[in-house]
Amino acid sequence: MAAKVITIESNILKKNDSIAGENRELFRKYRILAVNLLSSPGSGKTSLLVRTCGVLKKKLRVSVSVGDLQTAADAERIAGAGVPVVQINTGTACHLDANMVQQSLKSLPLEQTDILFIENVGNLVCPATFDVGEQLKVVLLSVAEGEEKPLKYPPIFQNADCVCINKTDLLPHVDFNLNQCRDNLKRICPHAPVFEFSCRTGEGLGAWHDWLLGKWSALAGVEC
Amino acid sequence: MAAKVITIESNILKKNDSIAGENRELFRKYRILAVNLLSSPGSGKTSLLVRTCGVLKKKLRVSVSVGDLQTAADAERIAGAGVPVVQINTGTACHLDANMVQQSLKSLPLEQTDILFIENVGNLVCPATFDVGEQLKVVLLSVAEGEEKPLKYPPIFQNADCVCINKTDLLPHVDFNLNQCRDNLKRICPHAPVFEFSCRTGEGLGAWHDWLLGKWSALAGVEC
Repeated sequence: MAAKVITIESNILKKNDSIAGENRELFRKYRILAVNLLSSPGSGKTSLLVRTCGVLKKKLRVSVSVGDLQTAADAERIAGAGVPVVQINTGTACHLDANMVQQSLKSLPLEQTDILFIENVGNLVCPATFDVGEQLKVVLLSVAEGEEKPLKYPPIFQNADCVCINKTDLLPHVDFNLNQCRDNLKRICPHAPVFEFSCRTGEGLGAWHDWLLGKWSALAGVEC
Repeated sequence: MAAKVITIESNILKKNDSIAGENRELFRKYRILAVNLLSSPGSGKTSLLVRTCGVLKKKLRVSVSVGDLQTAADAERIAGAGVPVVQINTGTACHLDANMVQQSLKSLPLEQTDILFIENVGNLVCPATFDVGEQLKVVLLSVAEGEEKPLKYPPIFQNADCVCINKTDLLPHVDFNLNQCRDNLKRICPHAPVFEFSCRTGEGLGAWHDWLLGKWSALAGVEC
């Protein structure tokens, strides 16, 4: 059974990579920085995007594509930040694939987009396998989840371009060892910068915003 | 591509269901109540098992099989509660399947087990699809995750025999609407009893323990 699964997965991934390549070409054409945002359910992806879109839209044109099994709740929250957003409902699928993202792009103003956030389905395993054409993978972890998560779910962290630790306002109320988490991240993804913040209070978000602006400037070849 | 996936999934699930049937037969033979524990990463499955095993082992013989992509951290924590435990490392697999559980049973004292907890991989999507032969599916949700999760991830909640809301000690510090969560659960899984507790403080765990003891008594046909 295992061998059969691997073969099929390899076919699925080959097809996915081909569509991801088309997405990447589209992002290149329109000079869009595409950021794939990954985390467990409830780590705060949507809260982070509401905050981030609100700040970044003063300097850049931001669009969002957001995936969930069901409901349009996340898209409605993000729309409140005043940016174009499309909700993808995956039904029972546990991740976004390149084709789902490609379909969603048809409803977004690509010519008026500098940075596209792709909020993946809440899942710390499966989305790691599916390239959707993004330039950056960002993994979000909340202090309510536990400092050992990078060790227990290494694939998603190993491919991260940066890791965000959210809900730092809860640190006095949970048994989360922040230093141990930093050490675990150094062990699993030493290349990835780590940002620590609270989307609830807004504290610490500045460095994350600056990093994104820097990445966009590097891509676009201009200061912003 | 979608059709191909569905076909293969159907083959995989057919094989899985056959092995799950063997597991179920084994549980019946040894009069074991098998409980499949499901949640996002970091909802507190392991903390719950440490607490629950510590209490239940005074009345019943408890064993645990625990799945993670990597590390034996969870098994080590649960072993501290003084019960037999086996760690399954799934590598990159996002869920436990019936075969993984069957392999783990070879290392557990089935003849001396009344209740077996199967702690699944932290994932609110994929484990819902895979029967491992359990009698009960328990879904755990933490108040750090958000009250809308049952609406956004319905399949796993729809099949739950009970839902546990953990980390209630954090309620004063998070924007979690407990009444809305109860309403959402009533809408998605009206059949499932809901237990609310804090594994950190221990508050509220009594009703959950009583429910488990009641389920075991019903299975075994004796009071405990």
